[in-house]
Amino acid sequence: MTDIPPRPRLRLFVEVPLSAGVAVALEREQTHYLSSVMRAEPGETVLLFNGTDGEWLARIDRLGRSGGILIPEQMVRPQSAEPEPRFDPWLLAAPLKRDRTDLVAEKVAELGATLFWPVFTRRTVAHRVNGDRLRARMIEAAEQCERLTLPLLNEAAPLERILAGWPEGRTLLFLDETGGGEPLAGLAAGWVEGPVALLIGPEGGFAPEERALLVSRLFVRPVGLGPRILRAETATIAALALWQALAGDGARPPRG
Amino acid sequence: MTDIPPRPRLRLFVEVPLSAGVAVALEREQTHYLSSVMRAEPGETVLLFNGTDGEWLARIDRLGRSGGILIPEQMVRPQSAEPEPRFDPWLLAAPLKRDRTDLVAEKVAELGATLFWPVFTRRTVAHRVNGDRLRARMIEAAEQCERLTLPLLNEAAPLERILAGWPEGRTLLFLDETGGGEPLAGLAAGWVEGPVALLIGPEGGFAPEERALLVSRLFVRPVGLGPRILRAETATIAALALWQALAGDGARPPRG
Repeated sequence: MTDIPPRPRLRLFVEVPLSAGVAVALEREQTHYLSSVMRAEPGETVLLFNGTDGEWLARIDRLGRSGGILIPEQMVRPQSAEPEPRFDPWLLAAPLKRDRTDLVAEKVAELGATLFWPVFTRRTVAHRVNGDRLRARMIEAAEQCERLTLPLLNEAAPLERILAGWPEGRTLLFLDETGGGEPLAGLAAGWVEGPVALLIGPEGGFAPEERALLVSRLFVRPVGLGPRILRAETATIAALALWQALAGDGARPPRG
Repeated sequence: MTDIPPRPRLRLFVEVPLSAGVAVALEREQTHYLSSVMRAEPGETVLLFNGTDGEWLARIDRLGRSGGILIPEQMVRPQSAEPEPRFDPWLLAAPLKRDRTDLVAEKVAELGATLFWPVFTRRTVAHRVNGDRLRARMIEAAEQCERLTLPLLNEAAPLERILAGWPEGRTLLFLDETGGGEPLAGLAAGWVEGPVALLIGPEGGFAPEERALLVSRLFVRPVGLGPRILRAETATIAALALWQALAGDGARPPRG
């Protein structure tokens, strides 16, 4: 009989291997989060994951100013519980104003994309992207939504450069707010074979020359999400959720 | 030949009838928005809609401290351009922390729900809802996303009372984060007939007795959105977007 304790209230991503009895030293910020924010104490049980070794129950061994030590005790979910998604979606999006780019990064992790790639376009208002902050936000979202993996974060690049180096075999679906695209639902339900990336433009949409460049490529297809003009972050969530529900892992239950 | 001028940058919801040549007096806040925020001037053309008379081009006649006057000149989209959605979704959601309830209201309007109904549950953190603020946020979203109608806003009520007075013939789909539900995509693709409402619980989920009450009702079905635990506002957007794409107007292009 396996004896599984009640589900811990805390779940952390760590960047070290996980195996039974091998101590994990927390980073400074995680130590602060556990002790000062969450008021955890030595002896409390925490869930740990690192993207490759599954999910572990770990006990807090030490927690103080000098740092924190956790001891993994029991694997509770193998890495195989999160299979490679069949069409692992990538998400490309033009950076928005600061808070809303953070929100997009969070939703990319929460909705199971495997890669987030910020794209500079003509009408992109933001000209820089803080990768460290986006990554922190994705880790936090992965911790809370019970993912076993993190999305990769590609360095922000201009649209032209991304298209020039596009990987073979991956279809790029761009949200075309001019109404020229096919409904995304149909594509997700089986009209597109193989891996995809979803591309969402900035608030002002794509410039005409960008749209022309996009549709000139054989791997690109314009898609639509219905008659209302969605804000960029809404379109991101809607497109990813739809893709997961129809072509991804949407039929699986939580903690499956 | 109809001569349609370039699309105006401003679009406003007004609560008066719209017909050619009949002056529309703006409210104080809209006057302020047009003159001080958007720096509009008399002579500029604005789009107006009121939920029943279609969308109109109107010219700013006067704009000053004493108020603003617009003259509707030409209807550019009839009300019938936004047909009654076949399964007009309602959206019921537990209020979240202030900013995120506002976000939910915005997305309800943006994603074409016809009614927003805040629901108090056992684990709802917020105990009050500011209807005026939610309504203002929905108007703003409707203005920006090119809807011709506004969603209705029902007064917040406890879950038990809402269930007790539930209207006949409308299926209530609740997002069940315990994993007990059917995939929402399947239901949206045709397993449910007739009008629906989507119900999203608070961050902590439904209490066991609430879940039991829900599944005891014949008009209720638990549904799921996949293996990851979504934040409440993400689940709202995902569920509405999926419903519109599969059972609603998702196949129509923008400005159709």
